[in-house]
Amino acid sequence: MKIESLDFFYLSMPQVLDVGDGSQDALLVRARATGGNEGWGECEASPLASIAALVAPMSHSACKGVQDSVLGQTLETPEDIRRIGALVRRNSFDLLQADHTLSGVDIALWDLLARKRQVPVWNLLGYDTAHRKCAYASQLFGDTPEQTYAAAKQVAAWGFVAAKFGWGPYGLGSVEADAEQVRAAREGLGPGAILLIDAGTVWGEDVSAAAARLPALCDAQVKWIEEPFISGALDAYRQLRALCPDGMTTAAGEGCHNEQMARHLIDYGHVGYIQIDAGRIGGLAAAKQIADYAKAKGVRYVNHTFTSHLALSASLQPYAGRAVDLLCEYPIDPKPLAWELTRDHIRPDGVCHIDFPESPGLGVVPDPDVIRKYLVETEIVVRGKVLYRTPEI
Amino acid sequence: MKIESLDFFYLSMPQVLDVGDGSQDALLVRARATGGNEGWGECEASPLASIAALVAPMSHSACKGVQDSVLGQTLETPEDIRRIGALVRRNSFDLLQADHTLSGVDIALWDLLARKRQVPVWNLLGYDTAHRKCAYASQLFGDTPEQTYAAAKQVAAWGFVAAKFGWGPYGLGSVEADAEQVRAAREGLGPGAILLIDAGTVWGEDVSAAAARLPALCDAQVKWIEEPFISGALDAYRQLRALCPDGMTTAAGEGCHNEQMARHLIDYGHVGYIQIDAGRIGGLAAAKQIADYAKAKGVRYVNHTFTSHLALSASLQPYAGRAVDLLCEYPIDPKPLAWELTRDHIRPDGVCHIDFPESPGLGVVPDPDVIRKYLVETEIVVRGKVLYRTPEI
Repeated sequence: MKIESLDFFYLSMPQVLDVGDGSQDALLVRARATGGNEGWGECEASPLASIAALVAPMSHSACKGVQDSVLGQTLETPEDIRRIGALVRRNSFDLLQADHTLSGVDIALWDLLARKRQVPVWNLLGYDTAHRKCAYASQLFGDTPEQTYAAAKQVAAWGFVAAKFGWGPYGLGSVEADAEQVRAAREGLGPGAILLIDAGTVWGEDVSAAAARLPALCDAQVKWIEEPFISGALDAYRQLRALCPDGMTTAAGEGCHNEQMARHLIDYGHVGYIQIDAGRIGGLAAAKQIADYAKAKGVRYVNHTFTSHLALSASLQPYAGRAVDLLCEYPIDPKPLAWELTRDHIRPDGVCHIDFPESPGLGVVPDPDVIRKYLVETEIVVRGKVLYRTPEI
Repeated sequence: MKIESLDFFYLSMPQVLDVGDGSQDALLVRARATGGNEGWGECEASPLASIAALVAPMSHSACKGVQDSVLGQTLETPEDIRRIGALVRRNSFDLLQADHTLSGVDIALWDLLARKRQVPVWNLLGYDTAHRKCAYASQLFGDTPEQTYAAAKQVAAWGFVAAKFGWGPYGLGSVEADAEQVRAAREGLGPGAILLIDAGTVWGEDVSAAAARLPALCDAQVKWIEEPFISGALDAYRQLRALCPDGMTTAAGEGCHNEQMARHLIDYGHVGYIQIDAGRIGGLAAAKQIADYAKAKGVRYVNHTFTSHLALSASLQPYAGRAVDLLCEYPIDPKPLAWELTRDHIRPDGVCHIDFPESPGLGVVPDPDVIRKYLVETEIVVRGKVLYRTPEI
């Protein structure tokens, strides 16, 4: 096969709110290859900037639009996808946004190749078996402890045995205010469930601010404190990890846009869980490399995802065969755009385990009618030439 | 003052060649504030992707277009510029390209504030004195050793006592072919001059490929081997540094788009020289932080720049007051766009030292006629609304 086209679709809710909910817009990638083959991927990224990185005119030999390294390439084997990814990184390493753009492209190419071979993506990635995961209910903190308590009680009633609360007011107010939020989450969830807290990088590189929250996290038997710092704060991560009591650890990695960053969080940041978003790190090839690296280093791998079930499925593939890495992020309150986008959904069973889709590829396909419903018409014109216009769906 | 406007100008040579010459296009930033104040900056980045990152619609609370955090802000002191930079990083940390966009904005704000106060930018950055630098002639390798020899002989004839050759065929062929190139550079330059070699990240993370070139580099008394690896290859950098003989060291850092990355290259990569491009790392505030950090860690700071003399001046400001950091990159063969852009130029004297411009701000101002000459008309329309159109100059 030769890769014939890369079509990017920018979708958005009619109104985007100034909150940490990443499901308010989406950037879909449709890859087509000769012989009528098609695959879909999704970037977890700013749609407009990522489209620009796809079509950007060449600035010099290491600053090219992503499509220059993909269109017309041969695609027959997983090795071809890795080769194309390496080519993008080489030809676009001075185009910062290229990593996010590549992510959706890489995912679409795996989906395309797996659908052609009628196998699941995880099989192409090298696994013989996919182990079901334990879905943790992922959501934002309420504005008040009462709201958080109610939300926690709700997910417990739905049968979730693990839940994460993040962003919202957490870390922005006093240590005591944060403690109340964490206590509310634990009380609502009940004593046996796994509780995870996501600080959304709120403390920058400030170890003492994070350390001040540890006693409350410890009291509530929180399993991990996620993203207390920005992605590159390796020293801060290492210091906080050393302060964590037994049974609690750190988690980070969603901001990694290449394999090196994730390895640094493991090697120098000493994170307990490495959280990879396939829609940011460069796609499934890169994410699988980190799953293998984490295994070698004795670090737990877990997906990061916060948009559609296409992105959810993609995020699960890189560690499908790792039985020991049981937890998986499962956003429970996505915007209608993210939920409606695929007809099929990955649904937790009675004990909140999820199975991998059985259909080939990623096993879930975007619904063209829903794409049309949320489509954001976009056009980029340079020197009178249309470099990008929202494609036909 | 309040920041009233940020105007981005995409300039390009009529034809952009597939070579490592970063002076073939440019992205200028004009910042205006109340009271008729104006400043100019330049991003070292893909113009189209960086413009998209400026105007991108909000995806969520941590993924906003850069202008959302800048327009309307108060600008009275250097601390305001740092505050605005921190705000951009916080509000746009999931918009990867934002760091490159911020870089030009930050530079323009320093220029604006310094021009208003009628002082040089280095003074606002905290230095009492600017020490002249020793310009090294920065250029690409020739396609053949003969071409490289001729180029080296030319810069020696012009009086340069330091020169760098990079990219081109270097690292792509055999160890012996690379050795011939390095020998040709040394022979052309003469025995006393400082010779620097730039591998343009060609060996990825492959330490053995780089190590195989060390004997020839050592024989030619090369002072540093620059970017043998991609920016994030910290282990590879550390290993290669340990293999360097006395008198030779490593240099890297131009790819850093935030302070953390540069600190990692120092702390974990053990580079001998940290090379910062103010047009990529987030601007002058971030670059100055790294100059201070390098000083504290006993590492040498040097500018990276490869476009106009506006960018050259910006790249020099963060280490203006550091007498011990004498070398500075000085591209000797910029494209006409990069040379013509400013009427004033920073010119080496008879022994190839350069002084800082004496005018306030960055001391060099883009020529409106030249901007018009190379302007690339660009338009971005989302949902029927023009988010960006090439501004009036």
